[in-house]
Amino acid sequence: MNSFGTRLRLTTFGESHGRAIGGIIDGFPSSFRVDFVALNRAMAERRPGGPGASQRKEEDMPEFLSGINNEGITLGTPIGFVIRNKDTRSGDYDLLKDHFRPNHADVTYELKYGIRDHRGGGRASARETACRVVAGALATQWLEERGVRITTFLSSVGETETANVREALAHDVELAISRGTYPGNLRLLLEEIEKVRKEGDSVGGTVTTVVTGLPAGVGEPLYDKLSARLASAMMSINASKGFEIGDGFEMARARGSEVLDNFKEIAENKITTASNHNGGVLGGISTGMPLWFRVAFKPTPTIGKPVDLIDRDGHIETLTVTGRHDPCVALRGAAVVKAMTALTLMDLML
Amino acid sequence: MNSFGTRLRLTTFGESHGRAIGGIIDGFPSSFRVDFVALNRAMAERRPGGPGASQRKEEDMPEFLSGINNEGITLGTPIGFVIRNKDTRSGDYDLLKDHFRPNHADVTYELKYGIRDHRGGGRASARETACRVVAGALATQWLEERGVRITTFLSSVGETETANVREALAHDVELAISRGTYPGNLRLLLEEIEKVRKEGDSVGGTVTTVVTGLPAGVGEPLYDKLSARLASAMMSINASKGFEIGDGFEMARARGSEVLDNFKEIAENKITTASNHNGGVLGGISTGMPLWFRVAFKPTPTIGKPVDLIDRDGHIETLTVTGRHDPCVALRGAAVVKAMTALTLMDLML
Amino acid sequence: MNSFGTRLRLTTFGESHGRAIGGIIDGFPSSFRVDFVALNRAMAERRPGGPGASQRKEEDMPEFLSGINNEGITLGTPIGFVIRNKDTRSGDYDLLKDHFRPNHADVTYELKYGIRDHRGGGRASARETACRVVAGALATQWLEERGVRITTFLSSVGETETANVREALAHDVELAISRGTYPGNLRLLLEEIEKVRKEGDSVGGTVTTVVTGLPAGVGEPLYDKLSARLASAMMSINASKGFEIGDGFEMARARGSEVLDNFKEIAENKITTASNHNGGVLGGISTGMPLWFRVAFKPTPTIGKPVDLIDRDGHIETLTVTGRHDPCVALRGAAVVKAMTALTLMDLML
Amino acid sequence: MNSFGTRLRLTTFGESHGRAIGGIIDGFPSSFRVDFVALNRAMAERRPGGPGASQRKEEDMPEFLSGINNEGITLGTPIGFVIRNKDTRSGDYDLLKDHFRPNHADVTYELKYGIRDHRGGGRASARETACRVVAGALATQWLEERGVRITTFLSSVGETETANVREALAHDVELAISRGTYPGNLRLLLEEIEKVRKEGDSVGGTVTTVVTGLPAGVGEPLYDKLSARLASAMMSINASKGFEIGDGFEMARARGSEVLDNFKEIAENKITTASNHNGGVLGGISTGMPLWFRVAFKPTPTIGKPVDLIDRDGHIETLTVTGRHDPCVALRGAAVVKAMTALTLMDLML
Repeated sequence: MNSFGTRLRLTTFGESHGRAIGGIIDGFPSSFRVDFVALNRAMAERRPGGPGASQRKEEDMPEFLSGINNEGITLGTPIGFVIRNKDTRSGDYDLLKDHFRPNHADVTYELKYGIRDHRGGGRASARETACRVVAGALATQWLEERGVRITTFLSSVGETETANVREALAHDVELAISRGTYPGNLRLLLEEIEKVRKEGDSVGGTVTTVVTGLPAGVGEPLYDKLSARLASAMMSINASKGFEIGDGFEMARARGSEVLDNFKEIAENKITTASNHNGGVLGGISTGMPLWFRVAFKPTPTIGKPVDLIDRDGHIETLTVTGRHDPCVALRGAAVVKAMTALTLMDLML
Repeated sequence: MNSFGTRLRLTTFGESHGRAIGGIIDGFPSSFRVDFVALNRAMAERRPGGPGASQRKEEDMPEFLSGINNEGITLGTPIGFVIRNKDTRSGDYDLLKDHFRPNHADVTYELKYGIRDHRGGGRASARETACRVVAGALATQWLEERGVRITTFLSSVGETETANVREALAHDVELAISRGTYPGNLRLLLEEIEKVRKEGDSVGGTVTTVVTGLPAGVGEPLYDKLSARLASAMMSINASKGFEIGDGFEMARARGSEVLDNFKEIAENKITTASNHNGGVLGGISTGMPLWFRVAFKPTPTIGKPVDLIDRDGHIETLTVTGRHDPCVALRGAAVVKAMTALTLMDLML
Repeated sequence: MNSFGTRLRLTTFGESHGRAIGGIIDGFPSSFRVDFVALNRAMAERRPGGPGASQRKEEDMPEFLSGINNEGITLGTPIGFVIRNKDTRSGDYDLLKDHFRPNHADVTYELKYGIRDHRGGGRASARETACRVVAGALATQWLEERGVRITTFLSSVGETETANVREALAHDVELAISRGTYPGNLRLLLEEIEKVRKEGDSVGGTVTTVVTGLPAGVGEPLYDKLSARLASAMMSINASKGFEIGDGFEMARARGSEVLDNFKEIAENKITTASNHNGGVLGGISTGMPLWFRVAFKPTPTIGKPVDLIDRDGHIETLTVTGRHDPCVALRGAAVVKAMTALTLMDLML
Repeated sequence: MNSFGTRLRLTTFGESHGRAIGGIIDGFPSSFRVDFVALNRAMAERRPGGPGASQRKEEDMPEFLSGINNEGITLGTPIGFVIRNKDTRSGDYDLLKDHFRPNHADVTYELKYGIRDHRGGGRASARETACRVVAGALATQWLEERGVRITTFLSSVGETETANVREALAHDVELAISRGTYPGNLRLLLEEIEKVRKEGDSVGGTVTTVVTGLPAGVGEPLYDKLSARLASAMMSINASKGFEIGDGFEMARARGSEVLDNFKEIAENKITTASNHNGGVLGGISTGMPLWFRVAFKPTPTIGKPVDLIDRDGHIETLTVTGRHDPCVALRGAAVVKAMTALTLMDLML
């Protein structure tokens, strides 16, 4: 189903080349003043056209239809919004009416539904994530009012990594946070993306998130562990292929004695530990230490080189697919990771 | 909440040192003949006491109370079952009434609920996974009747890996499956576990799963992607810290042109591709190719060496915690991964 | 939450005097051709301005934004729609900013949320039901294609009843259906409404629904009984105060020997009985006999006479509230009852 | 599915003549001291064998397996319980292996599942309601601690009614409550049941519930109105055929001017009105006035007279079905109505 969350629930609709996309945010508390400037900023981070991103222009600004009054205050009723589709060169996609691209969702949608909107990925398009960012921006504001701050940044592109993020987050949390979005390294990563674009190829990447100010006790034991809910949220983003929390896969290589997060202090709503290999979660419940996790994005499936397309009859043709695409979806993926993190945390905290 | 799944829903209860654990399996179709021998086998795989595992003895056999008639046929009504707790040396745990262990869920349960059963981990104990395996065994049988076969195996212990599993699964799927549980390598891994045990330490590991026979079309786009549902299921298992599907984090290091799974054939309920970097999923929907993914388990938090315990007042004491524990939870975790895979797939296929 | 249904799920938004109302229909199967003429007809039945109804004009036609392609075929993706608010004399409602009307939801919304859109009932307005009718019309079409036909009609206004509907439906089902919407009596009922309107008062009424062609087996035992789901759906409609299925409250007055529905035939997907006191449901599961039930609507709270309003400080003033209102909400309620019936049945049949 | 509730969720299992029935109560808060004496009392009210009830003896006491510690304090973890089946003369039911009784769920279960436990109604048996009463008793205690008190009583048997309950509850609420369970009238009702039993017949009845101390604001607008949730809960009880809140169906016969509940006072968490025709709910949200509603139960389907049974081949035989049954299910139904009311209210208040 097209809904995310339990107490705070986002339900979305819209094909990338239909009339509009949009959604309903249900369960958002009443009497909250929305900061529309911050909302626009969040939308801008996801929007195509920035450095290293796709050349399409989208305004992508939501029109709010309900749930917020004229003074920008929430009513406690569902918040409906639409984003009209404008800049859509549907002609670019004629080839795809009968042909399927490798690594794309075209073929699985067709096998599942027997029908699809072939233009621009339809429902599977990354354009859908704009709705997530609208809702996520509201959730981010609500969390910030409670002292919960989410920092999400591109942490690697292909084999180029920023300085050892894992090491920093496991051992020197304060430093990690103060360095924020790692701007020094971001330039390196953008250069790598630009290089790949010029080669007509695409490249994978990872996105890292750090959440500070989260109290202990968030997450439900067993099947709704905080880590399980985050994993689900992250793997629901287009092109994501992996999730790890804290040391993650590195922890599977370690000895128990090497990764003990020794206690320093205990308080009513948090513990403090000397290191943070566990990433701020024990038994699926937040500890009060910074929460940190990493998401792997695969390279954009569409590349500027000839690829093998297959049609319904099984004929294979080698063709170059036109259209504008980000060479590294992880770059804009960071804004979506942040939005999904906010939606997940607010849902669990309500 | 303590429920897993939507159409096939497992709800569980039970503290590890209370009277019993158990569960209700709701939504299981009627008129299915249960194979109790296969069920026992699945339970045995999870049970402590095997090579490399904990020395506790548990019978752990469920008593079925409803939903299955005298002939072993399901009625379509909820299947209730209990597993009595027997072999529980609660005295081992007196120290833990007021002390919290590092890397354990004791402390987060206490902060969340203000009360807990301190004996053996209570609700957070790995004992709870016995209920998952009961339900998973039934789901596995239902899937096998439809030609869906799940193979789960320990793929690394610490830095010791079986021969390149990722390479095999991405490129030579047939071979990978025919080799089944990689027995040659399993011995190496068990030796590594034994070595760690003797040192009084514990060690992490990874578990790999391959599913064959899964038709295309399983999984819902957007928020209930097959990959999202699997990630959530896997991260809900005790001690899991990471999930990746197909090439996963390796895909984040690759160029797009390197990881294209080129089409070979298309049929009504599956596609065939020359490679399988995507792990059998595109756009969150199964392709019909083998589904494969990997789960990272952290080292068992309890080790045989002195560790720093903290009490409610913040005093830290260095003590050795007694009790019997698997040095590598990933070993028995494989049975749980298999069970959760079966529950997830059956839920989506119903 | 603002969602209805499990497999077919309608989520709605919108205050009556905000920018728009609308909704998302999720789970509607792909490749279904929508009949927009039938949809318009359903909308017209609910619309104010017919005989006996309010004098406001609303166009109320939904704009579909997604999920249906240019040829009117569903894609299997969520169907988003909006209905713009136009004919809204907000000035009529200034008095209600600080005053609460008896029998209205104004006061409970205020107590619950601490904020509300006071214009025209806001979210509690009957205008919201337009969204239910949009979704219900699609569900009705889907059901009709499967031979399931829903007939809903006004069966009483105040103490004026149509000829004994209960008697007919319990004993002579064929006749009941062939008589359809009981037009002869409808005139009597409309005359009663008109009479009440002239007196500046309002009046209650009942709405009866008969569903034919429903196969046996619809409804889940225990907590999701067909009767429970229908009751919930009907009681979710504004101003409804009672629900009964089959003989309902009359059955509570009867002897067991008087209300036995004796078997005539049994087939694979239905039973035939000589009478139908049970209303087509046994043990919460449909029998294959016509399903019939009745809903009680209270009189419109707003009347053309002076009433006591209370303000936040507890001051009571006697005033006549202006604005246009149906004297008998049951009249237009029939279209909503039909829509909710369709949504409930389709959800259970998917 | 076999679950009831969202935040407080009861999931049940068990056939009436299988090994056991039982359930899991999920979401019950931690650190609540359970009153087992009060629990036993609630169980006794539902138990067969009282005046006017069936002659079977059942102990029906639940064994709690988890979620409550040795001191009777809840842990916040799921509360699992089982009730063993003992007094079951399965032989009584041999006839029903191949024959279906009129007005019973046997036939619909068979048509739906193709298999059933024919002994004593299996899953459709009223025995299942014991599990509801266990959970409801805990919820009742939790509500009472918050000043919410539920009174449920048999209000009519056949055509014999207690003094005008509706009138009292709409107009003289204080009196209504102080009269409690209407003992004077209860004797009349029991006499009527006894008379019907002697005639070998059964009879319908109504059950009325009054809730005092409920604050304003309970219930969600639109699809989860308090009235909708209660209606669903009540219609999920075996043999219930109707639900009305406040004046209910009488309100459909009234003029608007006759049923205005005029305001007397407004406070932060409740309003006070001069009458209570609306039954304590406006717009689906509680007002703070007493909540009151009525449930209609049909006569027990099984009577001591010969009835027409049908077999799978459609042959009809006239036979007297043996076995012990309450002539008026409404009598014991009151305990179940109370339990379901408590579960519904606690779920909405959490």
